Amino acid sequence: MIMDLKSYLAEKRTLIDETLKSFMPEPEGPTSELIRAMSYSLFAGGKRLRPILCMAGAEAVGGEGRNALPVACALEMIHTYSLIHDDLPAMDNDDMRRGKPTSHKVFGEALAILAGDGLLTEAFNLMTRSDFPDKIGAARFKEVITLISMAAGHLGMVGGQAVDIMMEGKEVDSSQVDFIHKHKTGALISASVSSGAIIGGGSRQELEDIALYGNKIGLAFQISDDILNIVGDSEEMGKRAGSDAQKKKNTYPSVHGIERSKVILMELVHEAINSLNKFGNNADPLRQIAGYIIERKK
Amino acid sequence: MIMDLKSYLAEKRTLIDETLKSFMPEPEGPTSELIRAMSYSLFAGGKRLRPILCMAGAEAVGGEGRNALPVACALEMIHTYSLIHDDLPAMDNDDMRRGKPTSHKVFGEALAILAGDGLLTEAFNLMTRSDFPDKIGAARFKEVITLISMAAGHLGMVGGQAVDIMMEGKEVDSSQVDFIHKHKTGALISASVSSGAIIGGGSRQELEDIALYGNKIGLAFQISDDILNIVGDSEEMGKRAGSDAQKKKNTYPSVHGIERSKVILMELVHEAINSLNKFGNNADPLRQIAGYIIERKK
Repeated sequence: MIMDLKSYLAEKRTLIDETLKSFMPEPEGPTSELIRAMSYSLFAGGKRLRPILCMAGAEAVGGEGRNALPVACALEMIHTYSLIHDDLPAMDNDDMRRGKPTSHKVFGEALAILAGDGLLTEAFNLMTRSDFPDKIGAARFKEVITLISMAAGHLGMVGGQAVDIMMEGKEVDSSQVDFIHKHKTGALISASVSSGAIIGGGSRQELEDIALYGNKIGLAFQISDDILNIVGDSEEMGKRAGSDAQKKKNTYPSVHGIERSKVILMELVHEAINSLNKFGNNADPLRQIAGYIIERKK
Repeated sequence: MIMDLKSYLAEKRTLIDETLKSFMPEPEGPTSELIRAMSYSLFAGGKRLRPILCMAGAEAVGGEGRNALPVACALEMIHTYSLIHDDLPAMDNDDMRRGKPTSHKVFGEALAILAGDGLLTEAFNLMTRSDFPDKIGAARFKEVITLISMAAGHLGMVGGQAVDIMMEGKEVDSSQVDFIHKHKTGALISASVSSGAIIGGGSRQELEDIALYGNKIGLAFQISDDILNIVGDSEEMGKRAGSDAQKKKNTYPSVHGIERSKVILMELVHEAINSLNKFGNNADPLRQIAGYIIERKK
């Protein structure tokens, strides 16, 4: 693995940001404030992890990362909408996100709800309105939309968020925190890599291996988030360290303790990388992104 | 036109309700409360206007209404999600809807937001996971998803709702109330008929005529809603008469006066029916539904 992850991520991030910008309309006319709210959160400095994973998933199976761009951008819109809604007063009630005031703090609650709704809807529009469906063919296009909508909905992210909210302040066991993490965060991350691999033309066996990788790093990413929330630097993270404990959020450290959580995180990353054993150098970005989850500071 | 509209609507409604039930999962496991919230609003006694229009649109061009069922049900899910979010305290702050407590009154705000998010996401899942895309072919499938996601998003329903919220209590002119109505209500109603006509295999000319019909009745429906809110029977409507005026909502009667609004409504319905002049008996349901908009009491 001799590739430079940092420049790989930076290059992809630039491409994704440019594409997202080209997809978003200018804030003009009666709905300008809504467009502004949608763009505000979409360009608030996200890491673009999901779109990068989607492109890297396509490359891992020998496909072209660029072909995955419409879906990659759609995934970022879905992720962004979920953050806007999660931050709402009725949900996690967060004032700051990535070092900036959250959507409802800037635009008010009503527009924040609608900006989220708009981004979620636009994600599906974006995947269909481009020439992308024709390029990858009907069967794979259908598979991608089914996969992403399942991962984002009540069987995935929305389901995980609902359980997380309902369990806040209650004592949960390890299987319950697993359920929350795997659904709330893991499902969409996993779908990001897998949809990329479908777009890239992966074989059934490759898709199975990639799904395994995605499930492992999806959970790993949330565990590293939990750990960072305790040991991280507030400034670097753009939100307050220790906020999970204050809100009595159910996290890996609150259930397993911080040291055990770190061990589980290492194991998951190791297993994720192992699941790519049959892949060649094309999968190096996926391998290195898995490693980055352990080292990341925000 | 000798068909019996009442039994046509009842028959379709039963079919749609049954199909929606078959699509919704049982409330089991950790996410049971979320599923319960989604189902609560989905089966709260809606008229099923959008799905019926979708099926009638398919029939008008000589297609089979049943083939449109997955899309028809998806449209009802999108409509239902929009009602749940519209009713939220940060939006219209409504306690009652169709004679029942609104979602956030029963399940709390967080779960109401998530139930809406879940229904919107499930709508797209439903359209893709069935054998429906294979049945109608890739091109038309893509066209349907593009159309519906555009009508539901910032260029349609969400955009209209944003402008409606921002203009509440402010003096608006007739072009602004037109913008709100056409986007907030008209866009999804119009997309319902048009998506049905695409599924039914309509020609370009037929699709144009149907789009014209859809635009007219979409606006007409919201105007009749505005009028009913003033003259209607609270019990029959399941919500308080006069609530629009109390909230200083921008309505057709508030801009044009009630008598002029009734005239405009009649003209729109007349134009809608005229746009179907080239259609045969297959379009009788669409013609009669247009007439029903004038006569409806809830």
